Amino acid sequence: MTVIGRFRHNHVDFTGEIIAGKVHSHIGGREYEMDKITILPPCKPTKVVCVGLNYKDHAAEMNEKLPDEPVIFLKPASSVIGHGASIIYPPQSHQVDYEAELAVVIGKRARHVKPGHAKDYILGYTCFNDVTARDLQKKDGQWTRAKSFDTFSPVGPFVVTDIDPRKLAIKSKLNGRVMQESNTDNMIFDPFQLVEFISGVMTLEQGDVIATGTPSGVGPMNKGDIIEIEIEKIGTLKNKLM
Amino acid sequence: MTVIGRFRHNHVDFTGEIIAGKVHSHIGGREYEMDKITILPPCKPTKVVCVGLNYKDHAAEMNEKLPDEPVIFLKPASSVIGHGASIIYPPQSHQVDYEAELAVVIGKRARHVKPGHAKDYILGYTCFNDVTARDLQKKDGQWTRAKSFDTFSPVGPFVVTDIDPRKLAIKSKLNGRVMQESNTDNMIFDPFQLVEFISGVMTLEQGDVIATGTPSGVGPMNKGDIIEIEIEKIGTLKNKLM
Repeated sequence: MTVIGRFRHNHVDFTGEIIAGKVHSHIGGREYEMDKITILPPCKPTKVVCVGLNYKDHAAEMNEKLPDEPVIFLKPASSVIGHGASIIYPPQSHQVDYEAELAVVIGKRARHVKPGHAKDYILGYTCFNDVTARDLQKKDGQWTRAKSFDTFSPVGPFVVTDIDPRKLAIKSKLNGRVMQESNTDNMIFDPFQLVEFISGVMTLEQGDVIATGTPSGVGPMNKGDIIEIEIEKIGTLKNKLM
Repeated sequence: MTVIGRFRHNHVDFTGEIIAGKVHSHIGGREYEMDKITILPPCKPTKVVCVGLNYKDHAAEMNEKLPDEPVIFLKPASSVIGHGASIIYPPQSHQVDYEAELAVVIGKRARHVKPGHAKDYILGYTCFNDVTARDLQKKDGQWTRAKSFDTFSPVGPFVVTDIDPRKLAIKSKLNGRVMQESNTDNMIFDPFQLVEFISGVMTLEQGDVIATGTPSGVGPMNKGDIIEIEIEKIGTLKNKLM
């Protein structure tokens, strides 16, 4: 298991590994204290592919039937922010919701991945918040606008490799209070099946993110709120709404 | 008015200008015969933002109400191909439709573009085919899978600058027969309004594509068919279905 992040120090961006709480840069091998550098999104996706209604309990709360195939949608790379960055409340919306999700980070170009081979194309896993303007989602029917605002895809803090993504506790906390609490073993389609399915439609590139759906308990945030997505063995993604 | 393309010759990609039917490379100023080089997509989008139901006649044929705001969706960059490349019929679908569209190509980073200023952020215009697996679109409800297959975003052949996009004849031809025939003046939201609206949601990057919706007359293609999108003052985008 390795823990990989992207960081900024003195206007230079670099990747590094976290060992005993310190960041070891992949370039030059320099060591940094975590609180002296900026944490960036841990990967640079060309696209974020999301899965709707992939937890049985969330499908029920949204009054939707269980899908027999994954329902996918896209968030643009322009919506991605890292741990600690602010989510900006857009003036077009009056209800901005959090959605805690496990994210798969693609490790190498993937197309038509065969059953049993998804792992070979996965770099690792991280936390994702599929921030959604719920009122605009309902109005548009298509989910794109509601989910594509700049800052609506917090991801991080780091990518953790070599863990089994199929049984991890997942939580969201709003201002410290637990709002969602589930386990990835409640997914309808597991992360490996999702990589197979999506790569059967489109080429996945290194750094691309697959957000694997959210459990029940989604709800609105207000300006000033702190939202945390916490996943077992991965860590906590924390962002403030502004 | 300039006509800009991207090309490949001897494994090297370059941009160039078309003057009197010949390609003048932007690097080194070399001149090429058009039939001696490969035409690539004329821009390198980070995302393709599409607009649903933006012609009154197409909204009617799809049994949809006229929207009071644009309904947007995304196609991934991985779906983009150029003039002359083949559209691949995916085995998951049994109905693959053409949709002729005018595409706006963004010239520089755009966010919160004010009314009257969209032109400053537009490089030019080109043809786009919003290829759609109509059966999967109906099944999923969300349009993403149906429109995101690799090769489902033919764009080109070239970007034409400094034309007025608000009154251009637009056509699709299937094996030489006219299937769609309209004019961009039938759009509900014109290209400038779309740039304003979309940039109010997300940052648009240089090279990004906005596909402005299709007129009535969409329909299915079969393997071996030749589909052409023809727009006045721009040219003809031609692709074969395989």
